[in-house]
Amino acid sequence: MKTDVVIIGAGPSGLMLGHLLAQAGVDAVILERKTGEYVLGRIRAGVLEQGTINIMTQLGLDTRLQTEGLPHDYVSLTNRNKLIKIPVRELTGKHVVVYGQTEITKDLMDAASARGVETIYEAADVALHDIESDTPFVTYHKNGQEFRIDARFIAGCDGFHGPSRKAIPADAATSVERVYPFGWLGILADVPPCAHEVVYASHNNGFGLASMRSNTRSRYYLQVPTDEKIENWSDDRIWDELKVRLGPEFAGKITTGPSIEKSIAPLRSYIFEKMRYGSLFLAGDAAHIVPPTGAKGLNLAASDIAYLAPALISYFKDSDASGTENYEATALARVWKSSRFAWYLTSLMHNFPEDGEFGRKMQVAELDYIANSKAAQMSIAENYIGLPL
Amino acid sequence: MKTDVVIIGAGPSGLMLGHLLAQAGVDAVILERKTGEYVLGRIRAGVLEQGTINIMTQLGLDTRLQTEGLPHDYVSLTNRNKLIKIPVRELTGKHVVVYGQTEITKDLMDAASARGVETIYEAADVALHDIESDTPFVTYHKNGQEFRIDARFIAGCDGFHGPSRKAIPADAATSVERVYPFGWLGILADVPPCAHEVVYASHNNGFGLASMRSNTRSRYYLQVPTDEKIENWSDDRIWDELKVRLGPEFAGKITTGPSIEKSIAPLRSYIFEKMRYGSLFLAGDAAHIVPPTGAKGLNLAASDIAYLAPALISYFKDSDASGTENYEATALARVWKSSRFAWYLTSLMHNFPEDGEFGRKMQVAELDYIANSKAAQMSIAENYIGLPL
Repeated sequence: MKTDVVIIGAGPSGLMLGHLLAQAGVDAVILERKTGEYVLGRIRAGVLEQGTINIMTQLGLDTRLQTEGLPHDYVSLTNRNKLIKIPVRELTGKHVVVYGQTEITKDLMDAASARGVETIYEAADVALHDIESDTPFVTYHKNGQEFRIDARFIAGCDGFHGPSRKAIPADAATSVERVYPFGWLGILADVPPCAHEVVYASHNNGFGLASMRSNTRSRYYLQVPTDEKIENWSDDRIWDELKVRLGPEFAGKITTGPSIEKSIAPLRSYIFEKMRYGSLFLAGDAAHIVPPTGAKGLNLAASDIAYLAPALISYFKDSDASGTENYEATALARVWKSSRFAWYLTSLMHNFPEDGEFGRKMQVAELDYIANSKAAQMSIAENYIGLPL
Repeated sequence: MKTDVVIIGAGPSGLMLGHLLAQAGVDAVILERKTGEYVLGRIRAGVLEQGTINIMTQLGLDTRLQTEGLPHDYVSLTNRNKLIKIPVRELTGKHVVVYGQTEITKDLMDAASARGVETIYEAADVALHDIESDTPFVTYHKNGQEFRIDARFIAGCDGFHGPSRKAIPADAATSVERVYPFGWLGILADVPPCAHEVVYASHNNGFGLASMRSNTRSRYYLQVPTDEKIENWSDDRIWDELKVRLGPEFAGKITTGPSIEKSIAPLRSYIFEKMRYGSLFLAGDAAHIVPPTGAKGLNLAASDIAYLAPALISYFKDSDASGTENYEATALARVWKSSRFAWYLTSLMHNFPEDGEFGRKMQVAELDYIANSKAAQMSIAENYIGLPL
């Protein structure tokens, strides 16, 4: 088979890219290792910046998002039980919209075949070849057979563990990483949320977070040590600790209920400084991981695509290579800024025992400053709603 | 001898307090361990916030400050040679004024005797007694004799190494501290400055700073390892390294010349959380040390006095103890905020090898964000000109 662009990965970034290319009449094929059902079953955040929404609007696939998405005009921080409610809409004129990543993926998947977005699911052993050249190709196995797709470009949208980044020689790229000394214990439950906006709580026991998936489904998190065992956390213990960390302002509003999902995830910042290598482009988690604080992961993947799609379209439709040449520099500039904000908010809101009492007091002082400074709130708000592309 | 308030230390905070009390007709005596000449000979920074200037204006001692002080409408940061010139006056409507701490001290000293501000210099072995009680007293030696002064209150304005803070029992107070893993090598020279505003330079070699004492005298600093020896730094080596760290924007404008002072000072954040104990109040460096980045030390001492002086005046003139009761809480709130800013700017601008390449990249990303965000510049500007009292 031959196409213009092979897209590896049918998560939101791969699907968005596939749709944008199809809309412009550029040939592309998406390869996905798993089934569509599996992809849809992954539970992920869903706080969308305007730039992410714009892609769905450009695709004409925002009907359900506009109907079911829940606009958030505020984001709340707490400083040891003192509430700091930041009016992001009043400050910036913009808001974020809560709409699950799963829903975005579903909207993109549902529209795929009608729009000629070809996706090959259960493509095993995907391997990239000749990526240094202008004639790269991808091989994979399906139903016991090997297949090959030739293309002009490959877009690696296959996440942190996918084969795309690994296809780049180690000596051709540098990366930086920070593994945080804690994880997030998450609980999903079909209970109404304790607050409409997302609440980031800093407490001497550790960080806590309250968020909503919908008006009847809530997602909460607790900072726990990296080596914590999920077996130690009964639902009751989780709810009790959430009430403590979220503080009196929210404790009484927390509706408890049985967990429908419960897990511990590590926190990591990772930036791979090579987003283009020969005929391969990387986007989203394939190139960078942000800690979940600030909800930048999906939005950063979407902004990568917002740069990559027009670059590829210009290449094929206008024989203009300037976009593909500039993709790495343009995308990385925004990656650094989003990574900075995710790192900053993580550093501000979590307990870092290694920073001692001085570190904790500086966090308290910084939150106290934020509570009283419009400039500081504006700085958080403009990052929260998403810096301009 | 008997007085209302014994002030220990004749640095700027002690002298300001003495003058403010004298102006209001409250009896006070200042005790200083050194001679007046020695105090005046200490080289210190001199970037004054409006609140600090206001005290001199309130005392009618701002004539020389208003004539000779140099208003700064900008503060500059560099990000690996890229200049970020923050228009603090345009953003905040306020500015800072460069006027040496030595000059402030001189103005206060020169006016002391005419205004009945009694200062006893060369008071040795100052010791505080019965500070838990309402009848404390201070003893000291001078010319081989012991003296005693009884008072209602004692104000400890005697710096980090003075006896006042040490008079508070260890179990009555908590403190937090951070010793930074580097020092500042300072050079003073009678050469015109390379820039009118202060330049804080972040460079992969380490931090550098350009500041002016006057239009013909400059003060520069270089980040060096804590254990660096001053003997390793000839004037030529210092000038060469300053040109590298300040970058091409300023290198060509640096006028070199022989050093008239050269030294290495450690950097420390220290906050003593007890600013009142019985009849003793602490102010300035006696209670807290900030790293010099951001020029908060003198201004924080002045803001302590801006709270303490009216509190004491109300106590004696209106029999109103609310100010003295609230002093600690009020002053500490501002101490935390100034300490936070000094820590933040120190953390942003210096090399911290222990934070690795990830830490360095986050600094670069944060400065890049600041370069492009009005909110971020406003946040720095409002802290630089001084948060409101």
